[in-house]
Amino acid sequence: MARVYNFGAGPAIMPLDVLQEAQADLVDFKGSGMSVMEMSHRGKEYDAIHNEAIANLRELMGLNDDYAILFIQGGASLQFAMLPMNFLGEGQTADYVNAGSWGAAAVKQARMIGNVNIAADCQKDIPTRMPDAGEMKWTPGAAYSHLTTNETISGAQFKSIPETGSPLVGDMSSDILSRPLDYTKFTMIYAGAQKNLGPSGVAMVAIRKDFAGKGSISIPTMLRYQTHIENNSLYNTPPCFSIYMLCLTTRWLKKNGMQKIFQTNRDKAQLIYDVIDASGFYRGTAKKEYRSDMNVTFRLPTEELETLFIKQASEAGMKQLKGHRSVGGIRASIYNAFPAAGVKALVDFMKDFEKRNG
Amino acid sequence: MARVYNFGAGPAIMPLDVLQEAQADLVDFKGSGMSVMEMSHRGKEYDAIHNEAIANLRELMGLNDDYAILFIQGGASLQFAMLPMNFLGEGQTADYVNAGSWGAAAVKQARMIGNVNIAADCQKDIPTRMPDAGEMKWTPGAAYSHLTTNETISGAQFKSIPETGSPLVGDMSSDILSRPLDYTKFTMIYAGAQKNLGPSGVAMVAIRKDFAGKGSISIPTMLRYQTHIENNSLYNTPPCFSIYMLCLTTRWLKKNGMQKIFQTNRDKAQLIYDVIDASGFYRGTAKKEYRSDMNVTFRLPTEELETLFIKQASEAGMKQLKGHRSVGGIRASIYNAFPAAGVKALVDFMKDFEKRNG
Repeated sequence: MARVYNFGAGPAIMPLDVLQEAQADLVDFKGSGMSVMEMSHRGKEYDAIHNEAIANLRELMGLNDDYAILFIQGGASLQFAMLPMNFLGEGQTADYVNAGSWGAAAVKQARMIGNVNIAADCQKDIPTRMPDAGEMKWTPGAAYSHLTTNETISGAQFKSIPETGSPLVGDMSSDILSRPLDYTKFTMIYAGAQKNLGPSGVAMVAIRKDFAGKGSISIPTMLRYQTHIENNSLYNTPPCFSIYMLCLTTRWLKKNGMQKIFQTNRDKAQLIYDVIDASGFYRGTAKKEYRSDMNVTFRLPTEELETLFIKQASEAGMKQLKGHRSVGGIRASIYNAFPAAGVKALVDFMKDFEKRNG
Repeated sequence: MARVYNFGAGPAIMPLDVLQEAQADLVDFKGSGMSVMEMSHRGKEYDAIHNEAIANLRELMGLNDDYAILFIQGGASLQFAMLPMNFLGEGQTADYVNAGSWGAAAVKQARMIGNVNIAADCQKDIPTRMPDAGEMKWTPGAAYSHLTTNETISGAQFKSIPETGSPLVGDMSSDILSRPLDYTKFTMIYAGAQKNLGPSGVAMVAIRKDFAGKGSISIPTMLRYQTHIENNSLYNTPPCFSIYMLCLTTRWLKKNGMQKIFQTNRDKAQLIYDVIDASGFYRGTAKKEYRSDMNVTFRLPTEELETLFIKQASEAGMKQLKGHRSVGGIRASIYNAFPAAGVKALVDFMKDFEKRNG
């Protein structure tokens, strides 16, 4: 079997070990006579998977029992709405950092619910970037503050987490568990699983229980964090198979260890950034101090060359290098599970392509 | 491999063929070099799966282009809220039939949003049942009317679909595509996939486009049906693998044909009901004319005997026969994919158990 190098931004490449284990157990899970997909979500086999997934996430993020770890459907996009529905009441203000397409998407949903202060706005800046520390203006007594730790489309990433003075909420969909981090700086973290945690179909939410307890009680049951806390994410049938794959993926993360995962991620990204910096041909899209380790974005001298680059890379087994349709250019998404050999193949290809076309 | 007979109410047994095909393709889908779980939801491989799933559902339900077929996360439980959020405005009334736990759950969410008229209430009746035709009182000019076509817990099922005089919405989670039906009687149909359509993690929504167009525009983007229609359920990353499994399951349904599926379902259910009716030992829970072909519910003379029945059946490879925790008793869920041989095994066991304990 020839695995391609899948540089897609999400759904993204998964660890081969994890896929192979899921394949072996797909029809008959550990001699149970049924697939994980057929199991009752209230039975003991699934219960063990569900609770291991929670325990693994808790351990990897270093969060104690003050936090609940939840599985909610609808992706980060539904979190954009649930967050203000729960916590942005009348007469309150929430601070949002608007530093890219995903930050802007979160802002748009919050504005439908309540009053939003834009703490900093660099969404349209080129080179793409995150705001500097002194640039962000926080509202005293804000209901919460929100930031997107890594902007998947622009390729910019917060390298340190700012102090905001109010409960901090992070959309970490595209860099969750890619680096050691003091996750307790956040009151709430959410992440669609389909980049660093598993397949699509489930979002992980880590939330301080005391914060969740203050959420609105006049919104539909399924949209209250408190509902999912009280029912250990089993209020209704969860996306069992997606959570099972997340469980296997977090097991793989634990086996590797966050320090090794981070070092590998740093090394992979640096290899590509080094080629960019040594070249007059490739131009990095993001400001150097905010370059993402997850999504490396760059341009070529012309759009015609970009099209050729994507085509020839694809023919050489390097897939999905096309930048997001809203911005163009090239994007190499190299999440935790992306193999170092694939990055090596890409940088070799980049050097050769420059030689042939530069 | 020994497959168990899984009588679970959902997540439920899936066709073995479907599971085996998914297993074969799990790591490398049709030579693409990646798993379905790793594919971009905007790429051509996934696109073909997504659109085939929609086309299969459309064909099986016999719905033309006046209807959109959508995939939405959050299960039927989120539909309980989305429906009134979209369509139950101020000064309007929605009619709800309250004939079981799931009907009641839908009512509860609608009441948080707007004014509800209970068209008929037989939720607590024993024997369990659906309301009779003359019993339901519809509101002239109602925003919509809602019913649960099959109550999974009580084991009662509508055998014909009432005329309600307003746009009819059906929660068909537990009997979707189990029988030929004039689906055009409904303005909207929703169903969690994990009983008759595939695994958990996705709900199917079929909705008339003209009705959807009248939905509220002041609710969050992800909660508007119109959003999902305009984006062919690709507004954000969909639950790709669940939709893939639904695609394979609908392919299996098409191969069998609705008429054969229905006849098999009828025959399976009748086998169990015949044993019940011939016995003074087993008592059916539902009124005869409303007995469900999907969830056969019955009691034994004592709770002790029920516990013993469940235990011995489980030892004989017949799993999850325990009634819902809210009502007790025995429940045999025998959805489309449940094999006739499993029903035969159950009725043999029932007869033998009665002989030994009657």
